[in-house]
Order: sequence, then structure tokens, then C-alpha cells
Amino acid sequence: MTPLFLTFEGPEGAGKSTQLRRLAARLEELGIAHTLTREPGGTPLGTRVREVLLDPALDIDALPEFLLYSASRAQLVREVLRPALSRGEVVLCDRYADSSLAYQGAGRGLDPTLLRLLTAEVTGGLTPNLTVLLDLDPVLGLSRAAERGQPDRLEQADLAFHGRVRRGFLDLAAGEPGRFLVLDATRDEAEVSAAIWAAVGERLATRTG
Amino acid sequence: MTPLFLTFEGPEGAGKSTQLRRLAARLEELGIAHTLTREPGGTPLGTRVREVLLDPALDIDALPEFLLYSASRAQLVREVLRPALSRGEVVLCDRYADSSLAYQGAGRGLDPTLLRLLTAEVTGGLTPNLTVLLDLDPVLGLSRAAERGQPDRLEQADLAFHGRVRRGFLDLAAGEPGRFLVLDATRDEAEVSAAIWAAVGERLATRTG
Repeated sequence: MTPLFLTFEGPEGAGKSTQLRRLAARLEELGIAHTLTREPGGTPLGTRVREVLLDPALDIDALPEFLLYSASRAQLVREVLRPALSRGEVVLCDRYADSSLAYQGAGRGLDPTLLRLLTAEVTGGLTPNLTVLLDLDPVLGLSRAAERGQPDRLEQADLAFHGRVRRGFLDLAAGEPGRFLVLDATRDEAEVSAAIWAAVGERLATRTG
Repeated sequence: MTPLFLTFEGPEGAGKSTQLRRLAARLEELGIAHTLTREPGGTPLGTRVREVLLDPALDIDALPEFLLYSASRAQLVREVLRPALSRGEVVLCDRYADSSLAYQGAGRGLDPTLLRLLTAEVTGGLTPNLTVLLDLDPVLGLSRAAERGQPDRLEQADLAFHGRVRRGFLDLAAGEPGRFLVLDATRDEAEVSAAIWAAVGERLATRTG
């Protein structure tokens, strides 16, 4: 089968994990081979890097933060994404390179040229076929995340930062309308799920193999 | 005082730690303000990254390995090196950017152009005033390291790799003879120490402040 690489982006609290689980369940029902993974994480190295990145006790500057996400991503591409795509699977990934452009680029102000250059090396040019952006006002996203418990280091950052990140995601989506599906994350969970399924189904229908 | 930035490079088992301690003790005796640090490590973030890098159970590809070293380095530059140099101190660092060029570049074959470009961002152009390279045949270095206990992930890599790393260090030294002091690490500890002190003393003598 032709592989399909799908990524989910958006802020904490937008419902990425819920929607990913629903999509994975649907693929499972249909007997479609798939791999569900996430960033940072997805490999033993990535899991260790994730613990470091989300530790609220650590002081991490913008550039080392980007490099840690990139290290996790580089290992994920080589150990999980490329092999699964080579097997012709549908790969679902919770966050990918767009998150670095939005969070460390638009959010923390790192030079986008450097981010894009290094990201091209890290991913070896592996780009999603479809990126679902669950767009949400930062005020709502943070209150949703807070309901789930203690906010982690990223969630504690201020609203202005999250406003820049949202803008960054929307700008990326505007630049690549064919790859991005932007959905209002305040809509009903089932409605969002149906919209995602429509876009994924369309791409599944054109697979060959 | 004019700050002075000194780095020590070379393979495991060449005596870097011993020589760094001797030099730090000498500066201490003379009442010269100094900071002794190391890579990877030197900051809370770097210490966590070090644990990940040296864990023999983890599978880490060449590019993520370089990114993890770079993350530790970027944090060290911002949190330790720049502030200490701003205070006019002598800064002693056990490994720095040359290690990435030798290990991940010459050793693991990553593109030197990418390494140099990212390293310039990571260090913000901060270059040592003097780099002591303790040169050692890999066969001797590995046997010295083995005497100290279980070899870590890096020490388990093969001799051909360590041969390339040695060549990489020597090439770097040949390219910047004014910055590098290359010493035969098989010489007597006190002799090596005296040669280092001669070079450091020369640079201390020209400090102003």
C-alpha cells in the first residue's frame, strides 16, 4: 500500500490526543495497518528527552529546547516513521516539525531560517501528507489543560507566548493550504472527528497498492 | 581582568580530568578566579542530557547524538561560560565544540558544514583562547579507560571509529595551530602538566585588567 503520514498540531487542550485515539480506533476497525506515535517521545531516546523537556524544575533556553525536540524528532524519523512508512502503513503522529516552527520559532523568536534548515536535516525532508491543526484560543486551551492537573513547564508560559504560537500555526497553515486542515477545536468532539475522517478518507481512497 | 577560555580535548583515558584538576589547583593557589566545568554537563540541563548520552541501553543515531551534545553546549554557553567570562575569570572546560567535530564529524561521518554552521549558532561564536589536545593512540586510551571500570556507550565503539576521531582532532589542531597545544598523553603526568602550565602562564601574563 501507499503509505500515508498524518500529523496533528495545535496547543495543549485542543483535543489532539482524543482525536488521534478516535482516528486510530477507526483505522483499527477497518483493518488498516497503522502506527500511532508522538513527539517528543515515540522511541526510548525520545521518551527520555521528553522527560527532560517537560520537567518544570529545569531552566532551558530557546535554542537548547529546539535542539532537544530536534534530537527526539531525528531519532523518531529513523527508528519509527521511516520504517512504518516503508511498510506502507498509515502513520499518525501527535506533533511534528510544525510544532518547532510555531513554538520555538514564532513563540520564542528563534530564527526561522535556522529552524527550517536544521529541520530539513532532521527529517530528511519527510513531510506529512496531511496535517490537522486543531486551532484554539490560548485562553481556552490553558483552562482545559489546567483541568487535567498541574500545568507543566510549557503550559506555565504566558498567554502572549501562546498567542504567538497560535499565530505561527495559522501562518504555516496559510502557507501550505493543501497540506493543512484547520479545524475549530471548540466544536463538538464528534463534529471535529467527522471532519478529520472526511479528509483522511479522501486520502485513503486515492492510495494504491 | 581579561577573561581566558581554555578547553581540554582528547579521547577518554588521555588524562584530561587529571590535568584539569592540576591546573585548577594551581590557579587556586595563585588566587586566580576560575570556573571549572565540563561537556556534556555543567548545568542542570546538561547533567540530564549527559545521563542520556552515556546510557549504554539507549540506541542513539549520529544526528540526534550531535543535537543532544549541542543542546547541552548551548545551555552551558548561556548559563555558565558567558557569565564567568564576563566576570573576567579563567574558564576551564573539559571538552567543547571540537569534540563534536571530531566525534560526530570525523568519527561518525556527519557533514562538517552542518556541524560548523549549527555550532556557530550554539556557541554564538565563543571560541577558546587555548585548546589543549591530549593526543593518545586509541588502543592505549581504551585500555586506560577500561581499567577504571565498565566501559560506557562511547567507549564500546570500535577502534576504527576512535582512529577517525584521533585523526579529526589532529586535523583541527593543524588547521588552528595558534589555538591548539598538542601534547603526547603518554608522557609523564608532571611533564604534561608543566607543558600546559607554560602555555597557560604565557596567556595569563598578557592579561590586562
